[in-house]
Amino acid sequence: MTHEVKSAKDDAGVTARHNARMARKKEVVDQKIAAAKRDAGVLVITCGNGKGKSSSAFGMVARALGHGMKVGIVQFIKGAIPTGEEKFFRRFPSEVSFHVMGEGYTWETQNRERDVEKAQIAWERAKELLTDASIKMVVLDELNIALKYKYLDVQKVIADLQARPAMQHVIVTGRGAPPELIDVADTVTEMQLTKHAFAAGIAAQPGVEW
Amino acid sequence: MTHEVKSAKDDAGVTARHNARMARKKEVVDQKIAAAKRDAGVLVITCGNGKGKSSSAFGMVARALGHGMKVGIVQFIKGAIPTGEEKFFRRFPSEVSFHVMGEGYTWETQNRERDVEKAQIAWERAKELLTDASIKMVVLDELNIALKYKYLDVQKVIADLQARPAMQHVIVTGRGAPPELIDVADTVTEMQLTKHAFAAGIAAQPGVEW
Repeated sequence: MTHEVKSAKDDAGVTARHNARMARKKEVVDQKIAAAKRDAGVLVITCGNGKGKSSSAFGMVARALGHGMKVGIVQFIKGAIPTGEEKFFRRFPSEVSFHVMGEGYTWETQNRERDVEKAQIAWERAKELLTDASIKMVVLDELNIALKYKYLDVQKVIADLQARPAMQHVIVTGRGAPPELIDVADTVTEMQLTKHAFAAGIAAQPGVEW
Repeated sequence: MTHEVKSAKDDAGVTARHNARMARKKEVVDQKIAAAKRDAGVLVITCGNGKGKSSSAFGMVARALGHGMKVGIVQFIKGAIPTGEEKFFRRFPSEVSFHVMGEGYTWETQNRERDVEKAQIAWERAKELLTDASIKMVVLDELNIALKYKYLDVQKVIADLQARPAMQHVIVTGRGAPPELIDVADTVTEMQLTKHAFAAGIAAQPGVEW
């Protein structure tokens, strides 16, 4: 058997096994899709220590805008420096209402009373979005941090989330999502840190981190 | 001691402890920031089974556009249905070059030869972006799947990634990132599935999933 003939046979084997595996996979995926038929506004939580929590929310904003949906964004903690996402989404004032309500990370502000007060004002703003059925997606960026430090009462937040319009999607981001919130969410992803450029001495890059 | 006085004392204690903790945290964060000074184009990988891999990449695109950067996007696998992200980012043709090179997920196409061929054409398109220093961020969406099924050679892909302009950021998404690629990446997040609305019978919602 020449090398060439053997390779051709191997390739045919790889292709046949791949095709068989893909056929089984298609069956499983098709069954799942057939079962998942209901439309509903979903509550998505992105948490964990890894990079990607807020950026995932802003990617969903881009998707929603592509589908002609109106979006509301409240940033609970960020706000000390103007971010790329803020600059960009403010270009579309009739499609996106963007509210920067924070003054930086809480370890920067060093003032708990002020953090609590700011979080409560931010929640009032969020509630305006959560009672407006014309807004199809609401991003509550870093809300988890405000809940973790008990700047807001988690039961009140959950009650307001559950009273929202039926087809409105809500994305909540940040480390330290409380278990009560995870319980009532539809989709939850924990962003696990495998590695971060920060540890290798690379500064937070515009476009990537802010 | 009245209840009111006790509460006030407790509150003062909570605030004092919180402030002390935040002061320590600020010290640690400040030290890390002082150490991370270098600017560089970073290679970011988002992988794992959870929701948020591609959406995180599209959020970084929004950030980059906010900073006035030009962005290139190649979608390796998706392409069977028009997505929200495609519709949205195609609004900005002078800022975003958007290339949909796939024909759907591989278990949908059921044709390995064709998948390999499409992936190789897509990589040629990616290489055009990876050799253009005016493009400040390149998204290679679902590239990990093409690597996992060996539609592309991982060593060739790594060589081309490492030859890119020094300040260009690259975001690679998809399940099954090969260990060789993780080794050379700067920032890697594994999106861990805690729960997904799909399992509760909710169909993939526009804006959220596509």
